[in-house]
Amino acid sequence: MSDLFSRARDWFYGLQDTITQGLEQADGRGRFREDAWQRPGGGGGRSRVLEEGDLFEKAGVNWSDVAGELPEDVAKNMPGTTRQFRATGISLVLHPRSPMIPTTHANFRCLQKGDALWFGGGADLTPYYPYREDVVHFHTTWKTVCDRHSPEHYPRFKQWCDEYFFLKHRGETRGVGGIFFDYLQAPSLDAAYQLVVDAGSAFLESYLPLVERRRREPWGERERSFQLYRRGRYVEFNLIYDRGTVFGLKTDGRTESILMSLPPLVRWIYDFKPEPGSREAQLTEYLTPQDWLGPIPAAGPYR
Amino acid sequence: MSDLFSRARDWFYGLQDTITQGLEQADGRGRFREDAWQRPGGGGGRSRVLEEGDLFEKAGVNWSDVAGELPEDVAKNMPGTTRQFRATGISLVLHPRSPMIPTTHANFRCLQKGDALWFGGGADLTPYYPYREDVVHFHTTWKTVCDRHSPEHYPRFKQWCDEYFFLKHRGETRGVGGIFFDYLQAPSLDAAYQLVVDAGSAFLESYLPLVERRRREPWGERERSFQLYRRGRYVEFNLIYDRGTVFGLKTDGRTESILMSLPPLVRWIYDFKPEPGSREAQLTEYLTPQDWLGPIPAAGPYR
Repeated sequence: MSDLFSRARDWFYGLQDTITQGLEQADGRGRFREDAWQRPGGGGGRSRVLEEGDLFEKAGVNWSDVAGELPEDVAKNMPGTTRQFRATGISLVLHPRSPMIPTTHANFRCLQKGDALWFGGGADLTPYYPYREDVVHFHTTWKTVCDRHSPEHYPRFKQWCDEYFFLKHRGETRGVGGIFFDYLQAPSLDAAYQLVVDAGSAFLESYLPLVERRRREPWGERERSFQLYRRGRYVEFNLIYDRGTVFGLKTDGRTESILMSLPPLVRWIYDFKPEPGSREAQLTEYLTPQDWLGPIPAAGPYR
Repeated sequence: MSDLFSRARDWFYGLQDTITQGLEQADGRGRFREDAWQRPGGGGGRSRVLEEGDLFEKAGVNWSDVAGELPEDVAKNMPGTTRQFRATGISLVLHPRSPMIPTTHANFRCLQKGDALWFGGGADLTPYYPYREDVVHFHTTWKTVCDRHSPEHYPRFKQWCDEYFFLKHRGETRGVGGIFFDYLQAPSLDAAYQLVVDAGSAFLESYLPLVERRRREPWGERERSFQLYRRGRYVEFNLIYDRGTVFGLKTDGRTESILMSLPPLVRWIYDFKPEPGSREAQLTEYLTPQDWLGPIPAAGPYR
């Protein structure tokens, strides 16, 4: 079992290289800088951040392999006999400069706790402007990956994602979802690992095509302002609801690596309401769970 | 008892007028706009926000009188027999445009829950640049108010404030503190009310003199950038730790009024470290609990 953990750790380590290289190539100008860090409690990580690139205003890709003891209230809700844990994985958040390109987040991980080991992960998309074909491309990629392993995965992981990335106090999802899964051990640990490898390998193809499609889309002050405003929701979700963030801060994780996910520049405007009928108002229709791969409604709110 | 609650409510209502008038006068150009709102669970409020003023980039002064039923996990940690509660108070957060002027927050409130009634409140200061005399003025005002009621108040409330406004994951206080108190019922409810009235009445004089002293202080890109960066800490505190925010969001409060406290524009920079010896680095020395009214150390870190 600890052999599988090591294999996963090494594979995530390599995936960080693949992804950061792919992102640098897409950016053209920006370069990742790297911080290797040790965690006082055990283990460490390799954080890579690109700031002020051409394409990305901020991109963080973090790899880590940490061990420690879970607080009782966290441990009791997880499989496994002891409070000792080991966790390894890769986590990334990409904040493009252009408001026409969505923010994205992905995470793939392996946890070991006492006699239990499991995999978790997912990828989700947060657009600022509604382009249905981009959302469809993203979901299609993840459905294809999931379907190679089981026809039950995509519907289940898609729903899990919608439920997880929900801002209760706003009554809206963080974005248009994607997939989210945790405690994956079936049908075998090896099969679960293969799914995670398959998913991690698909990340660049889930995202870069829509980047290429949107990067020359024009935008100005209005779109920039709406992007900064919507980024506020991203901050609200991560600091109020996100388990990964709370888990990291509660287990004395490295603050700068955990909060790497926060957008570079954010605006809060009191009681902002987009102009009815505008593209900004249309985004609201995207922020509720829906079947992105079904037939496009001929009329009605979905475009 | 419910008579005292009503008296407090009416007094807070008038205090909102006094404070918003004083702030408009200080701003010169900006005007508060008002939203009266009803809460589906019971009660309502009057939110006032000033955005893009000369002095204030964003200022929110909120009055409310709400009733409802507390979630069990919140109720069990409070005095009083039932889960039914009623709360009234005023809460304000001021974000000046100039980085040389501190952000400030104050809150004065009365809670009734079953057979118990109590008062709470406080005021605290969050500077971006270290001016010791401003901090001393702020603390002196609150000490003077407290001392009129009991010599034990200021030391206790000052410590409570330092402990409350602490960002564990950053190892620093939110700002330079002030006072914070809760569950105040002694020596009598009337005396507790008088303290709150006295404190609420002192708010403008605790803050406006340092505004006047700093508003013509020059600043540029560098100071603005540091201000936006430090505002990130304010967001982190409010969304991760602040009981008022969590209480409001958990009891279906009005989201826009609760999150009115968030700064207008915020920046997160990965692993930013101010230049050693700079004024930005000196601020760090202010972000640890210390005796602001004692003798100034001749040497050492405190200026």
